[in-house]
Order: sequence, then structure tokens, then C-alpha cells
Amino acid sequence: MNYQALFEQIKKKKSFLCVGLDSDIKKIPSHLLDTEDPVFEFNKEIVDATAEFTVAYKPNIAFYECRGAQGWNSLEKTVNYIKEKYPEIFLIADAKRGDIGNTSKMYASAFLENMPFDSITVAPYMGEDSVTPFLEYENKWVILLALTSNKGAFDLQFFQEGEQKLFEKVLEKSQDWGTKENMMYVVGATKAEMLGGIRKIAPDHFLLVPGVGAQGGSLQEVAKYGMNESCGLLVNSSRGVIFADTSENFAKVAGEKAKELQLEMEDLLKEKSVL
Amino acid sequence: MNYQALFEQIKKKKSFLCVGLDSDIKKIPSHLLDTEDPVFEFNKEIVDATAEFTVAYKPNIAFYECRGAQGWNSLEKTVNYIKEKYPEIFLIADAKRGDIGNTSKMYASAFLENMPFDSITVAPYMGEDSVTPFLEYENKWVILLALTSNKGAFDLQFFQEGEQKLFEKVLEKSQDWGTKENMMYVVGATKAEMLGGIRKIAPDHFLLVPGVGAQGGSLQEVAKYGMNESCGLLVNSSRGVIFADTSENFAKVAGEKAKELQLEMEDLLKEKSVL
Repeated sequence: MNYQALFEQIKKKKSFLCVGLDSDIKKIPSHLLDTEDPVFEFNKEIVDATAEFTVAYKPNIAFYECRGAQGWNSLEKTVNYIKEKYPEIFLIADAKRGDIGNTSKMYASAFLENMPFDSITVAPYMGEDSVTPFLEYENKWVILLALTSNKGAFDLQFFQEGEQKLFEKVLEKSQDWGTKENMMYVVGATKAEMLGGIRKIAPDHFLLVPGVGAQGGSLQEVAKYGMNESCGLLVNSSRGVIFADTSENFAKVAGEKAKELQLEMEDLLKEKSVL
Repeated sequence: MNYQALFEQIKKKKSFLCVGLDSDIKKIPSHLLDTEDPVFEFNKEIVDATAEFTVAYKPNIAFYECRGAQGWNSLEKTVNYIKEKYPEIFLIADAKRGDIGNTSKMYASAFLENMPFDSITVAPYMGEDSVTPFLEYENKWVILLALTSNKGAFDLQFFQEGEQKLFEKVLEKSQDWGTKENMMYVVGATKAEMLGGIRKIAPDHFLLVPGVGAQGGSLQEVAKYGMNESCGLLVNSSRGVIFADTSENFAKVAGEKAKELQLEMEDLLKEKSVL
């Protein structure tokens, strides 16, 4: 999916919501546990209930990988289901991979070739040749970690050379590797006030913003400092949507939560004259 | 496996060789392709031919993940086979994972609980809470990326605050999170001359050193600058051992290559009075 198609979808759905499919088998409603593939059944119902309000889905791969080959099957079935039924929706493999060149190439083929993901999150520590193999697929994206939402972000990401912090170096340096058409950045909502500075370095790139809701970030703050004229934001909510209810009503409640977020986003898009 | 047991194995085998099971299905001998699980068959023969000379095996997870659930099965069978037949050998999941706390916990369970890995490579960018979930298992290890062997290492790892480079900050800061008993560092052999400086910051830790052989690093240099009184090194060779020959003789030749490296290592261990 290219930049323009993503922007068109945002305008059409009046939403920049990404739903995180962090589908922990220990947290899904118990009535699903008797089905053949509980995680896939859960995801399918969540997706059907939320797709109308959502422009992206982001399975965090850890929640699948921890179940081995079985988890891998649930993941493949989930993304194939989404791509077939909702081909307009942007798919993010939240994998945080990154290795030397010939190995990153293998990871790229796993997610961008063998599975229909549009994008993958990548860790920047190993530099250019660990990132560029993911950029070799047309209309596919790297979403590079810049400033993460967790407490540990302060351990290294604020390391400073002269006036420049490490996460700013990542934002700057990586623009030699990709463009706003094939690279986005992860910027945590828990540090929304820093989005202003980030927009000075990367004014046009999409930012994937986790940490709204359960992790404490505010959607208004994110839009205030981070939105650009093409919206330029994908804001993720995981637990706040998918585990809002754990009864047999879980999908309906998830849909309501997604709609609440969509309506809030619609207001923000109008306020910023994107719509 | 604890520090002492690893050191005992090094002394017994007179070797600090780690064999990288980067078992690319496109490169394995063609006569294996008709078997039910060619990658597992390949690994089993490689392991049986090299175990005598080897203290660690390191499957790079990318080479399995790119084959989906099937690859995951080959990986599980491989590590279960090694752990059962050669329980003294240290198993490294070269996965370069790292995510926010509750997600890193899932990755930790995937590799350190559901599979019998002794250790996992972890990317440091997200800081403390992305690393510590892997440290909650007794006698299991984090192997943290410090200075990698690839060209891209120069993009960020040499970013400098005052007198300190980023990879030095990683070495220093992470010593608040783990000890020499549960943390090692990845330091590429292609930058062996820098091992002297690294030993000043981390004198006692084990270092996992990739990049000898195919990537151009020298074993002598690595031992000269990096060996300590408990050896303190695991030196990895992947392609140079496992793909040294691609005929039906592949395992025998891999065994010979591993033995060559072991003999060279024995000399170095004696030279440094570790044996």
C-alpha cells in the first residue's frame, strides 16, 4: 500500500486508528478456548467488529511466537483473513526485527513476502544494512523504532552527541535509507510533547504511535503535536480495544471502543483541517 | 547452564567454538530435499559431526521464521535433539528480540521456556524493561548486542556522548541489569582491535563473537584482545563450517572444519594459559 492510498483510507474512514492484535491466549474469552484455533477465532471476531473504524491492524508477533508453530498458524490465518476480506487495511507486523544484511533479508521474506504484511517494525541499532533489506519490496514499509513508549526508552534513546539525541540521530540518519513513501517511525504517545521536535526532523513521515490508553498517552496531545496535513499518524490501541470486555460480548464491546476512538479522531482530523 | 559449567566445558573440549545453524534451505545439500524435514536432517548431521569440537550452537531464528510454521517445527526439533543428545552444549537463540516489558516476557517464554535454549540475543535500543524479562530464568542468559560485525554498526553504535560511545554506554548501563553470570555481549570479530577497550568495561563477561571466517574476522586477533582467564569467548562460525561442502559428504567436511577451528582454539587457550 502506498502513502496516498493510506491517506485516502484515513479520509474515507475518518480515522487513524490502528488496532493492536496482541491476542494473548491467556486473556481471550473462555468460551473460545474450545474452538480449533481460539486465537484466530478471537482475532476474526475482533476484526469484523472493528474494521469499519480501523485503518490498520498490528499483531505483535511475540504473542504468536510464544505458541510456536501453532501460534505461527494463527498469525498466518489472521493476516490472510484480513487481507482477503478488508484489502484496504494496512497490516503491520510488530516484530522489531533487525540483523546483518543477509539475515534481515530472511526476516523480510518471512513477513513481507510469505505473509501479506504491508510493513514491519524494525530496530535501528545495527544500522543501514540491517534496515534496507526490508525496503526492497514495492509498496511495503519499514516502521523504524525511534522514541519508544516504555520507561527503558530513557536508558539509551536520549544519549546525546552535541545537540543531538540518539532518537533524533535515528530519525535523521534513516532518511538516507528510505523516504516518507516507504518508512515510518515509532514514536510513543507517552512522550507526546516531544512530537513537535520530531516533526521538525521528519515533517512528512507517518508516525506509528503506541501507548495511547493502557500505557497512559493522550490522543489529543498526540494530534496536537504530531498531526500533519496528510494526518501522518497511525495511533495504536491494543488492550483498550481488544480486551475491553471478556464475556461473550467481547467483539461488540471492542467495536464500540474502536468507534469511540474513531469519533474522537474524526473531531481531531476536522480540527486540524485534514478532513 | 551457569558460568562455571560453561567454562568447564571449554576446558574439557579445549574449544570455544560456537557453530551457527543458519540453515538456509536454499543452500543445504540437494539429496536431503526429499526427506520429510530437510532442515532438521541437515542440522542433525551437522550437529553429530561437530558436537565433539563445539561448546555452543546458535540457530539464527530468521532462517527458520522465513519458513513459517514449518520452519518453527524444524527449529524445535533441532534444539530438542541437541539438548537431549548433547546436554552439555550451550544453546543460543540468535533472535535479536526486544520489546516493551510485557511483550519481551512473551519472547522470553517462547525461547527460554517453551524451547530449551540457554540464552537469547537481545537488541538494547529499548532499554532496561525490554531486557530484564529475559533475565528472570535461572541459569539462562541474555546476550546483548553491543558492537556488531556489520558495516551498519558504524551508523549508530559509535554515536558519542563526551568520551563515551553508544556501544560503550550499552556495556556499562546493562551491568545494572545483569551480571557476568547471566549476561554476555555480542562483539563482532571484524572489529577485534576494539576488544581491548571493551575488556576494560566488561573484563569478566563472556563475549559472543560472530564474524570470524566468512565475514573476515581473525581468530588470533579475537583471542589476543578478548580472551580472559576463564576464556570469556564464544567464537561463532556459521557458513564456514556448515556450508563448507554441499555434497553428500557435507557433514564429514563440516566436522573437519570444526576440528580445524578447535585445534586453533586449543593453541590459543594454551598460549593464554587458560588450559
